[in-house]
Amino acid sequence: MNLPSPYLLFVGDATDPLSIKMAKSAADWSPEKCVGEFALPGCEVTTGHPRMSIQEGVDKGAKAFVLGFANSGGFLSEHLIAPILEALDAGLDIINGLHDKVSDIPEIAEKAAKLGRQLIDIRHPTTKFKTGKGTPRSGKRLLTVGTDCSVGKMYTTLSLAKAMQSAGMNATFRATGQSGILVAGAGIAVDCVVSDFISGAVEALCPANDADHWDLVEGQGSLYHPAFAGVSLGLLHGAQPDALVICHALEREHMRGLPGRPLPSLQQVIDLNLQCARVTNPDARVIGVSVNTSAVSEQEGLDYCQSVTAELGLPCVDPIRHGVQPLLELLV
Amino acid sequence: MNLPSPYLLFVGDATDPLSIKMAKSAADWSPEKCVGEFALPGCEVTTGHPRMSIQEGVDKGAKAFVLGFANSGGFLSEHLIAPILEALDAGLDIINGLHDKVSDIPEIAEKAAKLGRQLIDIRHPTTKFKTGKGTPRSGKRLLTVGTDCSVGKMYTTLSLAKAMQSAGMNATFRATGQSGILVAGAGIAVDCVVSDFISGAVEALCPANDADHWDLVEGQGSLYHPAFAGVSLGLLHGAQPDALVICHALEREHMRGLPGRPLPSLQQVIDLNLQCARVTNPDARVIGVSVNTSAVSEQEGLDYCQSVTAELGLPCVDPIRHGVQPLLELLV
Repeated sequence: MNLPSPYLLFVGDATDPLSIKMAKSAADWSPEKCVGEFALPGCEVTTGHPRMSIQEGVDKGAKAFVLGFANSGGFLSEHLIAPILEALDAGLDIINGLHDKVSDIPEIAEKAAKLGRQLIDIRHPTTKFKTGKGTPRSGKRLLTVGTDCSVGKMYTTLSLAKAMQSAGMNATFRATGQSGILVAGAGIAVDCVVSDFISGAVEALCPANDADHWDLVEGQGSLYHPAFAGVSLGLLHGAQPDALVICHALEREHMRGLPGRPLPSLQQVIDLNLQCARVTNPDARVIGVSVNTSAVSEQEGLDYCQSVTAELGLPCVDPIRHGVQPLLELLV
Repeated sequence: MNLPSPYLLFVGDATDPLSIKMAKSAADWSPEKCVGEFALPGCEVTTGHPRMSIQEGVDKGAKAFVLGFANSGGFLSEHLIAPILEALDAGLDIINGLHDKVSDIPEIAEKAAKLGRQLIDIRHPTTKFKTGKGTPRSGKRLLTVGTDCSVGKMYTTLSLAKAMQSAGMNATFRATGQSGILVAGAGIAVDCVVSDFISGAVEALCPANDADHWDLVEGQGSLYHPAFAGVSLGLLHGAQPDALVICHALEREHMRGLPGRPLPSLQQVIDLNLQCARVTNPDARVIGVSVNTSAVSEQEGLDYCQSVTAELGLPCVDPIRHGVQPLLELLV
């Protein structure tokens, strides 16, 4: 996969910061690839990059119009089609991370064909996978797992990859979702794989490697999320992780998209993930906890992390506020 | 879905009885719909129905040629294409339960179009699903879960449905795999659903119902199978079962398709399934154990079931040899 860039990030009319995760991920982790963002009236969130029209984006050198929003299920609403057509007319390729393929929408497909633009549905695997085997393989793997969806698994994994690479370690980030793929330029969106092949796809994503090499595999969903736990379990078995990092976000009132449903405790998440991970790696262990504390003050965030360490006996950090050094020390 | 019948069951050149599960299921549970079986040289297994040529099948009234074999991954081998073309020429529609669509194979698609025959890929969902919600819903549901794949989950579920319907109970069999769909004429092959939608598809398959109605949901895979556990967990969450029946097969040397990997114990399967089931149904309970004892003598089978009851305090039957009455009593 060779994604055209720089990107103009399309955030639609999003009102929930979590729903523009894909745009925000590219903005945060590949800022050099982003010229700005384009929003519709009613949009209440931002990537932090300057807001501009499609034509201004083109004038600043953009090559691709990135559909940078997501929703549960990944559907493309009707009112988002006109701006996509405008971007094609303005000379941009389209990078799409929704379940719905832009190439399946006749108006878009026709215009792209006529103008010679690329329609890149990064969530849709283009290869054929085998079913998983669970056979032990060489190399080391770390997987981030969560109390819920959208709690910081990708940010934690990217932070670890960056820190390990800076420390001269042999480490590769493995993207399993559209945002990670946009940042890394490669990967497999496991939630879009046919369910028989989830773990097989992950085995292909992070195959046997050098004994000292670490694959840092981006987690998805949560074993406790009623919609996505199947994806999480297939990913856990396929990744065959040596190390797990538990990810959590503060001030989350309920499981993502499911008002009234409380989050599991960290201990529950540790126990169930270890129990399941040991099906394919009997030596799997939890090396620490990563918390998105952005909803509280610096001091409250620090206090929370210290209380987790006291309770569970594991290092606990907010990767953005504190860095990931305490997690790294257990991997060397 | 309205499948053309009667069926001529195509068993290919299969040598493993488990691999013709789909043909055998129709032969056992819908014998009135089967005129016979067609095999290639080298085939070492049988459905028990008379073996015949394709033309003999047509002469006996067959309307559909059922690709009645399966393999891990569901691929259609090259050498199976010629007999399919012959069946089309002889006047039959094709019913296919493999992952590979027959409609994607140009020679087959062209011939079918030219002759006006139907190509029915029953494993491929034709509807668009939503993501699961896990919201409590009315009606009762039972799910069969397993120590492994192919241990008798569908036979157990069908046996329960038949017995409950005979007892005048309000009960419906819900097929989740190609064999069950062939028997029931409806259902969703959950292992072919895009992984983000596993539990949502199952919520659609067995929606809210009358308070006294039982949906008997066919299980798939095993939480302990490294290839298919994701499917099993999504199915477990989506089914929101009140009752679980644990299924097992005797004399299984290793997990299906994975030499060297031992099966989990019944207690492990009970514990992990209950723990996960309670995410969407806090009242889920295991009502009994169903064992395929066909690999041992009648007496050994009976002894095994009695030892399970003594050890776990749960009724344990071979549904084919002993019937399912002891399981039923706990559901009334």
